[in-house]
Amino acid sequence: MLTAWTVSCQAPEESKTADPLASLASLEWIDLSYAFDSATLYWPNNPTGFELEAEAEGMTEGGYFYSSYSLSTPEHGGTHLDAPIHFSEKGQKLDELRLDQLTGAAVLIDVSELALVDRDYRIDTAAILAWEKENGQIPEHSIVLFRTGYGKFYPDREKYFGTAKMGLEAILELHFPGIHPEAAQFLAEKRKVNAVGLDTPSLDFGQSKDFAAHQVLMGHNIPGFENVANLDQLPASGFYVVALPMKIKGGSGGPLRVIAGVGRL
Amino acid sequence: MLTAWTVSCQAPEESKTADPLASLASLEWIDLSYAFDSATLYWPNNPTGFELEAEAEGMTEGGYFYSSYSLSTPEHGGTHLDAPIHFSEKGQKLDELRLDQLTGAAVLIDVSELALVDRDYRIDTAAILAWEKENGQIPEHSIVLFRTGYGKFYPDREKYFGTAKMGLEAILELHFPGIHPEAAQFLAEKRKVNAVGLDTPSLDFGQSKDFAAHQVLMGHNIPGFENVANLDQLPASGFYVVALPMKIKGGSGGPLRVIAGVGRL
Repeated sequence: MLTAWTVSCQAPEESKTADPLASLASLEWIDLSYAFDSATLYWPNNPTGFELEAEAEGMTEGGYFYSSYSLSTPEHGGTHLDAPIHFSEKGQKLDELRLDQLTGAAVLIDVSELALVDRDYRIDTAAILAWEKENGQIPEHSIVLFRTGYGKFYPDREKYFGTAKMGLEAILELHFPGIHPEAAQFLAEKRKVNAVGLDTPSLDFGQSKDFAAHQVLMGHNIPGFENVANLDQLPASGFYVVALPMKIKGGSGGPLRVIAGVGRL
Repeated sequence: MLTAWTVSCQAPEESKTADPLASLASLEWIDLSYAFDSATLYWPNNPTGFELEAEAEGMTEGGYFYSSYSLSTPEHGGTHLDAPIHFSEKGQKLDELRLDQLTGAAVLIDVSELALVDRDYRIDTAAILAWEKENGQIPEHSIVLFRTGYGKFYPDREKYFGTAKMGLEAILELHFPGIHPEAAQFLAEKRKVNAVGLDTPSLDFGQSKDFAAHQVLMGHNIPGFENVANLDQLPASGFYVVALPMKIKGGSGGPLRVIAGVGRL
């Protein structure tokens, strides 16, 4: 049952498999999601961002307090998920992603040393292999998170995107790190990862014109998590990720609540 | 590490606590969330429901496929979470809920036998005590889910709400089961539960005029999950819930992705 997280070993035949639910009580969950508000960052050409409108707020005639709001947002902003259909015509839509794609053991690859000195840095296969040399090969079906260090700039648009300008023309002036398409291919084909996330606005670097890392990952039905928060709080491996996007029927992506479970033992 | 869910008992001092991350690998996740689309059910007086608008959809000049949408929705519709501020002036806002309130061991109390024959049925303390007689006392900090059986009607508005009418006047004609305020008080004060959810549009029954169950739960900073899906797939106890609402700053509630982890053992 669920009342204790310790597992007795007095009955060997039972203790071969520990009670998985009991041991979950010892997990600490860390929120990797930014809140949505008027400061939430969107791609520069979005005419509007996140909006929250009050429908009711205050005491009712019935004598009790009541508040309720309505919201609107582009799918792709703040901490959000890119569904494969975002860049792949036959890719999965947001509501078609399976929970086993969105949950699982995860690793954190810290590339901040290189990324923070070069706004146009692209995470390459060499960076992944360097991590593996220290931490072992990324297991199949892992969720791979990259820490560029740019999360510390969020939500300062100029520091995070490389420009504070808005509109279509601002897109040419974006400078932030991303994933090299070859590394994306390596993760998809050689490591068969379930999902990829990072602490920048896009899987591709700011100067990308063809979003090739997106195309590669989504072509393999691998979803992406963008603007992931608090990656500085994670170890290199040995943690579990639950990534639950709003379940938008037919969505190309959407607001994502992503959390990491770290053992407290 | 994360590669195995079995726990060896050869080293007694280690096996006292199972590896929580290994335990997660042995869970099967069940989605308790409906997708958001044009059929998503909202309270009858909402002028609009869920709307998804295409920003881009098709081949780009760059020769790759691209789709992107924008959405709008009232906070309270479909599978969603009520934050305490929804009915309690000093209650937690949506983004203030802690992850330890939204994750944890859960129980399912099936009241469908009574609820399906009486659209105005209210889950009372006796129903909870009857469940406890068979399953043991609800542990403190549990997430408590009630199955009324009305989930099978979703999204048929007439069968689910008791009326297909829309507008303010339709509210008087709502007939669906909910939680009796005394049972809410029992759960809050005697069982110190973390959260409560059910497969109806509201914690309170359709004929409620004062939303007293809401007031009691939210007055204790206990969030509610409404329009929860797939409760027929859960056991009475021994499962784990992760409930991740969209993180709306200052929200009174919002779209919820809620999943249950059931042991595969």
